[in-house]
Amino acid sequence: MSDLLETHLRGTSGEVVIGHGHRFCIIGERINPTGRRIFQEQLRAGDLSAIERDVKAQVEGGADVLDVNMGVPLTDEPELLAKAIQMVQSLTDKPICIDSSVVEALEAGLSVYQGRALVNSITAEDDRMAAILPLVKKYDAAIIALPNDHDEIPMEADKRVLLTEKIIRVATEEYGIAKADIVIDPLAMPIGADTGTTLVTFETMRRIRDDFGVNMTCGASNVSFGMPARHTLNAVWLPMAMTAGLTSAIMDARTPQIVDAVKGADVFLGHDDWGMAWISAHRAKQAAATA
Amino acid sequence: MSDLLETHLRGTSGEVVIGHGHRFCIIGERINPTGRRIFQEQLRAGDLSAIERDVKAQVEGGADVLDVNMGVPLTDEPELLAKAIQMVQSLTDKPICIDSSVVEALEAGLSVYQGRALVNSITAEDDRMAAILPLVKKYDAAIIALPNDHDEIPMEADKRVLLTEKIIRVATEEYGIAKADIVIDPLAMPIGADTGTTLVTFETMRRIRDDFGVNMTCGASNVSFGMPARHTLNAVWLPMAMTAGLTSAIMDARTPQIVDAVKGADVFLGHDDWGMAWISAHRAKQAAATA
Repeated sequence: MSDLLETHLRGTSGEVVIGHGHRFCIIGERINPTGRRIFQEQLRAGDLSAIERDVKAQVEGGADVLDVNMGVPLTDEPELLAKAIQMVQSLTDKPICIDSSVVEALEAGLSVYQGRALVNSITAEDDRMAAILPLVKKYDAAIIALPNDHDEIPMEADKRVLLTEKIIRVATEEYGIAKADIVIDPLAMPIGADTGTTLVTFETMRRIRDDFGVNMTCGASNVSFGMPARHTLNAVWLPMAMTAGLTSAIMDARTPQIVDAVKGADVFLGHDDWGMAWISAHRAKQAAATA
Repeated sequence: MSDLLETHLRGTSGEVVIGHGHRFCIIGERINPTGRRIFQEQLRAGDLSAIERDVKAQVEGGADVLDVNMGVPLTDEPELLAKAIQMVQSLTDKPICIDSSVVEALEAGLSVYQGRALVNSITAEDDRMAAILPLVKKYDAAIIALPNDHDEIPMEADKRVLLTEKIIRVATEEYGIAKADIVIDPLAMPIGADTGTTLVTFETMRRIRDDFGVNMTCGASNVSFGMPARHTLNAVWLPMAMTAGLTSAIMDARTPQIVDAVKGADVFLGHDDWGMAWISAHRAKQAAATA
């Protein structure tokens, strides 16, 4: 068993800790134009106003960290991402997960960011690590890393654990990143595509927790892709994944059913002493309902 | 790792298998007068008619097995339990979990039961095992066993695993019960009473599965006792417990939120190939809603 590590993130004030002994960290996923045609057009026209509504909804829904992605084709992504980050930080003190596949956009985002960001993401590919890890070090950020290689997602837990070991070794030894600042994405795939996929992901989570003690996050909405009653499936999957060691997820905080599932699992995992947060949240809901 | 075992139960026709590679087994808990004053009075007056409604609701809700308990003070429990079992078996072909703390009632129930019953329950106490295991053997039943001693519930997983080992050794070696027919209740306690209690229960489940391969069940409603939003907490706890190795629970099948959570967890654990049962259930619900 490895020591269980804490990842510390900061926004304009205050701190968020991701850790095996802490409440689950909800990374709100909505500030992202993927699949949102109108938002894409607005962003292309330089109109970032929709972000305000998204930030409000995610924070009110329970997001601890906000994922910000500005991947719009035919735009200057570095400039757009830097602007969006400054705007989000003017609206909330929550830390940001800076999300891009473009290295220059990550750097532009990091250079304007106030606090300690989470960068999304690297893989185990040497060129991705060489391009991004120096930025993570320079700007004192934390990094999400996917244990896959050359665009191929390994279907065996062994291979994912091996690539996790490689990422941790390279990031710590070659780039001087603290192990606590590496957040592994154990790769959650849609259950509709492969009946055994969740068991592989859960085994990967247990082994990553036990062998390395690092934190983990993943795109949690993905698991129910193509299935009916997706909110229910997502609300079931997250407590299961938390039991296997997941400490954070990139998810839409606007769905109370899913956020409640995470908060309930926090109670059972001993991360909400005496259920005080659960009880308070319930009382607040009752008060709002009768107001 | 021990081989993972299957417990086979039978009602008047058909079979239910409890097993680590099978869909979760829902044991409907409602046919029980505890806390139901009117039902108690009816039973005391010899009126068993309410059972018909309870059987219907549990089976329609998704119960695979029905727990039948007739523990009403100031009645002839053996006679009442035998009558109730005959009545339930006239209404459904589902197997029954014969539930009593009175040895004579268990024997009366077993003597009229058609099929292969589950008996609820023994503890690790020698006198309870000596009184009940010969009946389990005689009537070819399976048995739920609680790893506690002298009415004291051990708060450590080590002690629960040790008592489980004792129960399995005594039941198999001294009474000739098959290991596959011993279903351990890993003892789920209310989270409101002790913040760490669920972690102990989950560790117990993992170790019982890995060390002995036997099946497990427990009273799942108990875990949220004293907390608000109990249905949500129960719906969160069950998928977590299933991830830790629980293969069955005694629960109220009338709450769709909780039954859906179990069915969703079956999908992720690979017990519902391609999610076909999940998809069919969803289509049936949609059809019912638009009919």
